[in-house]
Amino acid sequence: MLLGDFLCQRLIQLGTTHVFGLPGDYNMQLLDHIEDTEGIEWVGCANELNASYAADGYARATDRPAALVTTFGVGELSALNGVAGSFAEQLPVIHIVGMPKSQQQESHLWMHHTLGGYLFDAYAKMSQHISCDTAVIGWTKRDLQNAAPTIDRVLTSMLTTRRPVYLGIPVDLFDMDVPTEELERPIQAVRPQPDPEALQYVIDVAVRHIQAAERPLVLVDGCVMRFSAVPLVYEFLKRTGLPVVVAPMGKSFFPEDDEQFLGVYVGTKSKPGVLEVARNADLMLSLGSFLSDMNTGGFSYSTPTCHTMNVHHGATDIGYSHYHKLGFFEVLPALGKALEGQREQRLAHARAMAKIAHEPPRPADSFPTLVTHNYLWNRLSSFLRPGDHLVTDMGSSCFGAVDTVLPKDVHYHQQMLYGSIGWSVGAMLGVSVGARALRHGRVILFVGDGSLLLTMQEISTVIKLGLTPILFVINNDGYEIERVIHGPARSYNNIAPIDHSLLLDVMGSTRSRRSLIDKYETGQVAKDRDESHAKEAKPSRKHYHAVYTRDELDALLDDASFADAKEIQLVELFCLRGDAPELLSRTVHPNQEN
Amino acid sequence: MLLGDFLCQRLIQLGTTHVFGLPGDYNMQLLDHIEDTEGIEWVGCANELNASYAADGYARATDRPAALVTTFGVGELSALNGVAGSFAEQLPVIHIVGMPKSQQQESHLWMHHTLGGYLFDAYAKMSQHISCDTAVIGWTKRDLQNAAPTIDRVLTSMLTTRRPVYLGIPVDLFDMDVPTEELERPIQAVRPQPDPEALQYVIDVAVRHIQAAERPLVLVDGCVMRFSAVPLVYEFLKRTGLPVVVAPMGKSFFPEDDEQFLGVYVGTKSKPGVLEVARNADLMLSLGSFLSDMNTGGFSYSTPTCHTMNVHHGATDIGYSHYHKLGFFEVLPALGKALEGQREQRLAHARAMAKIAHEPPRPADSFPTLVTHNYLWNRLSSFLRPGDHLVTDMGSSCFGAVDTVLPKDVHYHQQMLYGSIGWSVGAMLGVSVGARALRHGRVILFVGDGSLLLTMQEISTVIKLGLTPILFVINNDGYEIERVIHGPARSYNNIAPIDHSLLLDVMGSTRSRRSLIDKYETGQVAKDRDESHAKEAKPSRKHYHAVYTRDELDALLDDASFADAKEIQLVELFCLRGDAPELLSRTVHPNQEN
Repeated sequence: MLLGDFLCQRLIQLGTTHVFGLPGDYNMQLLDHIEDTEGIEWVGCANELNASYAADGYARATDRPAALVTTFGVGELSALNGVAGSFAEQLPVIHIVGMPKSQQQESHLWMHHTLGGYLFDAYAKMSQHISCDTAVIGWTKRDLQNAAPTIDRVLTSMLTTRRPVYLGIPVDLFDMDVPTEELERPIQAVRPQPDPEALQYVIDVAVRHIQAAERPLVLVDGCVMRFSAVPLVYEFLKRTGLPVVVAPMGKSFFPEDDEQFLGVYVGTKSKPGVLEVARNADLMLSLGSFLSDMNTGGFSYSTPTCHTMNVHHGATDIGYSHYHKLGFFEVLPALGKALEGQREQRLAHARAMAKIAHEPPRPADSFPTLVTHNYLWNRLSSFLRPGDHLVTDMGSSCFGAVDTVLPKDVHYHQQMLYGSIGWSVGAMLGVSVGARALRHGRVILFVGDGSLLLTMQEISTVIKLGLTPILFVINNDGYEIERVIHGPARSYNNIAPIDHSLLLDVMGSTRSRRSLIDKYETGQVAKDRDESHAKEAKPSRKHYHAVYTRDELDALLDDASFADAKEIQLVELFCLRGDAPELLSRTVHPNQEN
Repeated sequence: MLLGDFLCQRLIQLGTTHVFGLPGDYNMQLLDHIEDTEGIEWVGCANELNASYAADGYARATDRPAALVTTFGVGELSALNGVAGSFAEQLPVIHIVGMPKSQQQESHLWMHHTLGGYLFDAYAKMSQHISCDTAVIGWTKRDLQNAAPTIDRVLTSMLTTRRPVYLGIPVDLFDMDVPTEELERPIQAVRPQPDPEALQYVIDVAVRHIQAAERPLVLVDGCVMRFSAVPLVYEFLKRTGLPVVVAPMGKSFFPEDDEQFLGVYVGTKSKPGVLEVARNADLMLSLGSFLSDMNTGGFSYSTPTCHTMNVHHGATDIGYSHYHKLGFFEVLPALGKALEGQREQRLAHARAMAKIAHEPPRPADSFPTLVTHNYLWNRLSSFLRPGDHLVTDMGSSCFGAVDTVLPKDVHYHQQMLYGSIGWSVGAMLGVSVGARALRHGRVILFVGDGSLLLTMQEISTVIKLGLTPILFVINNDGYEIERVIHGPARSYNNIAPIDHSLLLDVMGSTRSRRSLIDKYETGQVAKDRDESHAKEAKPSRKHYHAVYTRDELDALLDDASFADAKEIQLVELFCLRGDAPELLSRTVHPNQEN
């Protein structure tokens, strides 16, 4: 079989249904294989940065590896920021780059897209910093003869570390023969075999700690999802009856309507009730933590190390003791079994804690008619439905939605650690593609006007594919998150004024190429073409909604023709400059801690 | 003085008038200095890739160093593709990146935008591959104490090599004190002192070669501009009377209405007349060459090395002899003087060659009413005026415009070596900013619908700044250059349908934030606000022009209200799928060589 087909089949085996990217003259031979292979689909994106965000979003929504194809230099470098985000936040993405022909590289020809007639390795070296493994086929005879095993090696690295890998392939090699039987060897993540004695030891220590605690608390965080351990963690928690808080990056990985659920823990930036519960806890069992600044309320966790247990994917820490190679897959099943006897007492404790943690109704704010963040993120809860995917951009949205109580089975996506503004628009494409493939529910995006500007063209791909997300654009007249941080009156935090009411009309044109052109290109003129072209003076705006007030927002969200629409919708929420979600203000202004 | 002010003053000393980029919480302290400094202006862009393209364009249009400011990780990585283009094509760009505070880096805090709480150097290392020099202030005590000399070092590297440099500065250090007297030490490019004996030797050899030749020909290429040698080369050529051809990347660096000008030389892909002249030449004197595939007609130059002289910026090759450290600044003045005696004979020869090289009128093509490439690029000549800047994207446009005869003093910009599609839209912003600063003429962009989609949001910045370029969008329904190369009927070469007629309305909104919001934000309600908002149902489209036929194109170009417009204009040229400029077809299909 040919190398391009081998790649496609391997992706299909891993569950990958779609490949994101752009064509280029060094990769089109691979695109031929993708378009011709049953079971995998090409998603041509508007630009490479957006494509890399889409791959990232696809991996989040599906819990499957994502694939990204770009071309040498000019394509791949534009994708680096998105891939770096996947590296930082641990999403499995294979970045396949089509390169100049082997012969051109060997002869050091000064090809287009190069930095000169040498340096064919510069781009791969740049990607090494944001990849857990890198391979370029054809640079050594060994790699060339072992193309299939080399590809398998990087895929295995990706599955094992849940980080991106880089695979460079000269354009002439996509049609190189590889042995078909390679496909029969399955590939999967490498997991260390635990030493049964060590496992028993750590279980004993953990049980002793948890049973000695009177007020234990579990903190669920993002890596639980990254290593596909959400069901495992859920089972452990239901078995033990322990009370649960989630970190912002762990939000939606434990059902928020569950009796054991207390709220979102963001260190001293948590809401008062959750903060009280966390301060009173005498054991914090943290699962899959991302201990970054934004996710921890500025490193403001206060539980002493001796009262903290951390179970990661590949290791466990209890107090100051480290247990290597024993992570949640090894520890949690046995630990849950050992603890299930005291489930009822713990459930009673969880219910008592929930009473403390539960937030009293918020005070009315000073703008009772307008859509403030205070109002918006509470109101959103009742609009969401099981199965929905909620995507929020870095900025006001991802801090605001932390306060939204999610119905069961809502999937919440943000990029709070890496925090690249504009990410959500590309990610929304990938989430939408993944959600459709898995027959999930609606996809709902919240993005600020500043962030949207970076990546707005990707809406065109969403429309081209007939996807039907609901896009909420928070228009606060610029980069509001930056204003909260520094320079609230500085002009560098303003953006150019954009007319969002026309955006869907631009991105999903219904204009035809006029009959004149059609006649030459197709030999015939459709009767209604000139007519449809003449109609262009009136953009439809039919999927656009401007919202200024709470009443307008309520009316829209309650309208079934909006909530169940089978077409893309864009809602522009006009918000006040200076209004920001509470968590954002508390996080960037530590002096105003509660 | 403070470090941020030192940086601003150094840029002003170098002639830089504008800084491109986006705000981020690690760089806003620098933006304060930029906004508060007289003589330098902040240009806030829509995203970082576009900002890097704008910086590249600014350097091309002004022949001055360009400045780009981004934030750590999420900002800088999005700019890498643009900076790599400046590296490959040799444009001086200083990329200043705001980083986490020194203390945060030293403590290995897991800050947002990092790859983890370590690896603060990963991004700088990625940029090293596309920078001629890199410095991060504060990583060593020595750098911290010598911040100003360190900055001067990278600026000097940039001036000397005409390539980008990378400067990382922790956000707390922009307000660090540096000695004011540092500013008094001028910085400039380092140029080796030529050995007078060596210089005389190479002049003697060169004169002997040129005088021995009966049919010498000069080839002007891109590096002549990159090292600010356009006036020097012009003087040499006028003094010697030698006939001149230009490479595509050297186009506009010698006046095309000059009697010595013969045409554009693209190896065997040249037009027949130019090819004949080049084949008959018995000496090719090449100045500032970029010997890349696209710029040389696929490496199809045929002059034997023994009949070739190459004068670069830093060296000269005559036949097989290499002369180090003797470039055009050293060689051309003396060589011109030595050769001026035979000026008249050479001029006569140039005139004779021009007769051969001059193209007969083109045959009519098969689509006599439509705007074909064959028609378009010829027609453009009479629209252009002295002082105009013509910017073309990689793709049909930059190959097509090679055939456009340029009036005197038209500046032609393309990126034919690095060839990143979408580049031209960001570059057009930078060219426009530079052209306005230097009081040059109009800026005219040609970009395909596929390329425009990658970077379209930068039009918003152009409108925000009140710049008035004319944008020609060639709508051939997808990536036509890719179709010419591979997969003409493949769906991966299609793009989503975009309604360009509404693009300027979206990117330069005249809608207000409704009175409701205004009332809260400003305390007063402008009377006409609600009214202007109500008007939004009718986008103006007043600066949009659809063109299908030659008659329509001619009428538009002849209309003074269009040609002299004081506002931005967008012309959508509907072209046939499958129609491509001749040079593009000849270049990618070498079998059809003439």
